This record gives sequence, C-alpha cells and structure tokens, in this order.
Amino acid sequence: MSELKNDRFLRALLRQPVDATPVWMMRQAGRYLPEYREIRAKAGSFMNLCSNPELACEVTMQPLRRYPLDAAILFSDILTIPDAMGLGLYFAEGEGPKFERPVRTEGDIAKLGVPDPEESLRYVIDAVRLIRKELDGKVPLIGFSGSPWTLATYMVEGGSSKEYAYIKGMMFDRPDMLHKILAILADSVTVYLNAQIKAGAQAVQIFDTWGGTLTPRDYQEFSLQYMQRIVDGLIRENDGRKVPVILFTKGGGNWLDKIADTGCDAIGVDWTMDLSEARERVQDRVALQGNMDPCILYSSPDRIREEVATVLASYGNGPGHVFNLGHGIHPKIDPDNVKAFIESVHELSHQYHQASDLK
Amino acid sequence: MSELKNDRFLRALLRQPVDATPVWMMRQAGRYLPEYREIRAKAGSFMNLCSNPELACEVTMQPLRRYPLDAAILFSDILTIPDAMGLGLYFAEGEGPKFERPVRTEGDIAKLGVPDPEESLRYVIDAVRLIRKELDGKVPLIGFSGSPWTLATYMVEGGSSKEYAYIKGMMFDRPDMLHKILAILADSVTVYLNAQIKAGAQAVQIFDTWGGTLTPRDYQEFSLQYMQRIVDGLIRENDGRKVPVILFTKGGGNWLDKIADTGCDAIGVDWTMDLSEARERVQDRVALQGNMDPCILYSSPDRIREEVATVLASYGNGPGHVFNLGHGIHPKIDPDNVKAFIESVHELSHQYHQASDLK
Repeated sequence: MSELKNDRFLRALLRQPVDATPVWMMRQAGRYLPEYREIRAKAGSFMNLCSNPELACEVTMQPLRRYPLDAAILFSDILTIPDAMGLGLYFAEGEGPKFERPVRTEGDIAKLGVPDPEESLRYVIDAVRLIRKELDGKVPLIGFSGSPWTLATYMVEGGSSKEYAYIKGMMFDRPDMLHKILAILADSVTVYLNAQIKAGAQAVQIFDTWGGTLTPRDYQEFSLQYMQRIVDGLIRENDGRKVPVILFTKGGGNWLDKIADTGCDAIGVDWTMDLSEARERVQDRVALQGNMDPCILYSSPDRIREEVATVLASYGNGPGHVFNLGHGIHPKIDPDNVKAFIESVHELSHQYHQASDLK
Repeated sequence: MSELKNDRFLRALLRQPVDATPVWMMRQAGRYLPEYREIRAKAGSFMNLCSNPELACEVTMQPLRRYPLDAAILFSDILTIPDAMGLGLYFAEGEGPKFERPVRTEGDIAKLGVPDPEESLRYVIDAVRLIRKELDGKVPLIGFSGSPWTLATYMVEGGSSKEYAYIKGMMFDRPDMLHKILAILADSVTVYLNAQIKAGAQAVQIFDTWGGTLTPRDYQEFSLQYMQRIVDGLIRENDGRKVPVILFTKGGGNWLDKIADTGCDAIGVDWTMDLSEARERVQDRVALQGNMDPCILYSSPDRIREEVATVLASYGNGPGHVFNLGHGIHPKIDPDNVKAFIESVHELSHQYHQASDLK
C-alpha cells in the first residue's frame, strides 16, 4: 500500500511528538454535507448506503475533499453486527433503528452466533479495502464498532431506548443471560475489528454510547469488562505499524482511570469534563481524544476559533491529544463553520508542539 | 398547623441524627399507580390535573396511602413558570411538552416578566395549602421548581430537545440574551418557591434536569450561577423550622463540590457515581439524596432489597442521607416492587444510625 503522507493522528494516539494537533470529527461523513444528502437520497435508504462499498467509500471521502482532516473514518452503522446475527435491522422514519426480532429469552440467545466478517459483513470489509485504495496514503483510516454493552441495548430493547427497561431488567434479574449475549458480542466485535484491520484500518475506535447509563459497578461488569476482552484480542500491529485502539464511553468521565487500565491507547472524552482534569486523571498512560461541545458549531467562525483555543489550552503542551467533538456533528451545522473549526485546530495548535515544550 | 409526626426527612437534610434513613421517590405520584392513571384519565389532560388543586392534592396523597414514605412532593409540572409567562404550554401526545411561542429574539425576551405566584400560579400555591391540610402533619411536604437553565432549554427550544441547537446557539453567540432570560427565571423561581414555602412547603428541590449537558465552564456560568441566586433569595426558615434546599443536577456528579458551595443543604445524586465517592467529595458540608438506578425496580423484591443494602452501605454510617432513586420512577414499574423498596430502606438502615456510630 502507498506510504502514509500524514501520520499526525496515529502519532498523537501513541503520544509521539507531532507538529500540530490532529483533528477529525465523529460523523464527519454525514447529513450536514449537501453532497452526502444527495447520495443518501439516491441510495433510497440508510442501509443501502452502508451496504454498498462504493457508496460507503464515496461518502467516507466527501469530508476529506472539503477539509484538511487528519483521519478518515469508515462510513458504516454501529448495528451491522446484530444485523448480521439475523435480528432484522430496519430504520423507521424519525424513530431510529429497530430490530424485528429482539433478544429477550434463552431461546433467542441460543440462536446467536459470531458472524463471519468475510461472509455476512463482507460489505464492510470490502468498503475498508476500497477506502484505503481511494485514500492512497493521504490520511489514516479509522475502523470502528459499537461496544458489546451498547450493541446489546439495541438488541434487547429492540431499538433505541430512554429507559432501558428490558436490558436492565435482564441485567438485574438474569445477569447470566446478559453475560452470554455480551460474551458473544465481545467475540464478534474482536473478529470484526481484526478483519477491518487486516483489510486496512490503521486505528480502531469502540463506541460505548450507552455505557454512561450504568452505575460504576455495572459499568465495570457489563461494559468495560467486555471492552477489555476486545482490547486483549485485537491485532495491535499491522504492516509494520502499531494499530492504536480508542475507547469512547459517552458520560464516562468518572471512569477514565479504569478505562486506561484496559491497555487501550487512547480514550475519547465528552465535553462534560475539562481535558486538563482528564489528563490529570490518566497521566501519561493514554492519549485523549476530544472534547469540544458539538453545539459550538452552530455559532460563528470567530466564536468557534475562540473555543478551539480554549480546548487546546485545556489539554496544554505536548503530544497525546487528538482534537474531536465530544459527540457526533449535528445534521444542521453549516459546512463553512466546520472549515473554520478544522483550520483553527491546526493553526492554533503549533504553539503546543514546540520541541522545547515536549514532555 | 398540626405538629409534624415524622421529621426524619427534614432532619436528614440538615445532617441531624435519625432512627432510620428517610426515603421518597422522584415522580412518586405518577403513572405506575393504577389509581393515578384513573384520575389522569378522568382529568382529560395532564395540565387539567396539574391546574386543579383538588386533583393535584389527591394524586400527591396516593403513594402515601400505599407506602410508608417519609415525604410528600407537590404534584405539579416543572413548566408551570414558562406557562405562566404566556408561552402557551401544551402536550402533544407521545412528544412531550411544547410551547406555542418559543423565546428566541430580543423582542421575545422583552415580553418576559416575573409571574406573580398568587396570580397566574395561584393553582399551585392553592394545591400546596390543600396538601398541607390533607397531610395533617403525617410527613413533610416538598415544594419544587425547574432550574433556570432547565426551564430555559424548553422555552428557547420550544419543547424537549436532543441537540439543544437553539439554546446553545444563543449561549455561544448571544450570551447576553440568554443571561437576560436566566435572570428573569431566577427571580421567578425565587418568588415561586418562596410562595410555596409560605403556603406550607417544608423543603424545596430545584430540578436541574439538563445541567449535565453543559461543559464545566458553561454549567457554572449558565446553570449553577442562577441556582446560587435562588438559594440566596429563598426563605430558609418558616414556622420556627428550617426549610432545607435540595439541588439536583442530573449528570452533575463531577461538580458536587461546586454545588455544595452554593450553600444549599443537600444535593441530589444520580446513580453514575457511588455515594461513597460523592460523600468524600462533599465531606460534611451537605446531605446527599439518592441514588439507586430506577431500573432496579423492574427486578424482583429480593434483588431490590439487595440493591437497597448496597446503596445504604455505600453511604455508610451516620446522618445526612435521604434515600431516593437517581431519577424519576418509570411508568411500568409494578407497585408491589415499590413496596419492597420503601420497606427495605427502613428495615435495613437502622444499623447505620446507632448512636455510637454517629459521626
């Protein structure tokens, strides 16, 4: 494969010196871009878009044509694994994802197996290969998956949830059943991410979107434990280069030290904790990714630039920071504001990477 | 008024010794009770129920007839103040609360005034008077209000929100406009809660349901600052007895020390932080209220009892703990499970209140 021309992102994840802070955005390939909406309309449905490697590749590339982003992220859905397990994923307009066959009984669990990524998830792996080719070494490609806990919430609830009645009912009453589901998911995520890595993903991120709905004890037992298993099972070096692993638990600020204990390379942080405090908690053990409130992008270029400066100052000197939003970019953001955001990260961050300042 | 027969709740809020840990539940008057659903159906709409003092009194009393709760809480809506400001509150079926006239321009803000609680909110104050009479000293009555930030989110967004596009847009671009709204709301909440206290509320709680969506800096400037103003303006003693103030920011675990600095008497804590850690952070400055995951109530009486024991042990010995859920009780909970919950708090907590253990 072609040589990587911009490796800021990978270096920062490994806490190596860089010239400027790298930046990418969660959901950077998405609805805020008119060119995305055009392809999405042609594809007919969201899943048509995800399951077609050419279209997935095209939308992955779109934000890179507009902005000097330091990484691409595979365009896909977090629910590909449960879909490949045969649960019947569909998207009800305005209601988010749903499953035709939720997993609630021992019989439902007995039917679950680990999907072969080169079979039922082949379309994802093909998209990874295609994107790597298309990127041609411009920036690294991030692969990703939902965390076992997060995937299980959708599988047991049968879709999105506000109350988590079914999965927490199972967690409190029949933890043995939930542990079975989570173990199968941990295995599934491991082989899925390893297949993405073999196909060309140069870093991977696990999205634990709903880990923050748990008590500290239950987070450890039902979410973090299974992310730990995945971290232990991942290919950590490929093609002569380390493949960094990022864990992101939304609302997980209080558990940063425990997350760092998994041996991951970096932790995603949302905006409810200052990066200065997060850095104090994890010390030099991991890199940090984040954490600007995505709502700042509703504001003006000047105000955005000011906020970028604040977040950079909060992390401070030296390597180990990947700039990102604390959550996905919203659909109604003006693409010009994104330009101001991305450019100001690079412009304003040089001062934090002077050789003399490197720790 | 009649003498208070059970003052455990008020004593615990002031960190005074008690014989057992007091307990109440957020939304204890609510849809999980068949007798509530019956009255709600007769009332025709949720606002009919709130605005009729007799009906509001009746549903406030319902859970007390079933369970040995240590406090009653006024049945009302958090959006009564913006409704009294003339914004046109209505409830779209399955969509939550909405306002006909959201507040987004300087002209909208110029029209806002502080509602006179004895005029446009008279129905709430009358309900407080009626409930106190009906309670006849059985347990104390809690008055409440939404926090300025939380009320402002609904007023500016025009209803519930996932993304906070309008209010955070205003916060970042025109903080002067948002500060005007919040100042009017802080004054409105102060006179509203003082009217509730004068009418008989023996403790008050401010619900900052959406403070946890802010950065630490913005929480301080746009939410906590205004709760501080309210705390400073509240009647803190009435009828020869202290009137404790409880602040509850959902997702505010990281800011407990700052919340304690306001001079409130107690802080509500959700389940994402152990009470042992919360107690270490606030030391002896305030009491703590919480923090069982409401989803445990989907489980069995035995499992609920076990979890109550865990939460009690997490707080540990001595006074200053009011047992509660970390958020409102869900509508589909079995009322028998609630019985097991409330009874086990009293039964299992005596050991933590032996005279020799008191700090």
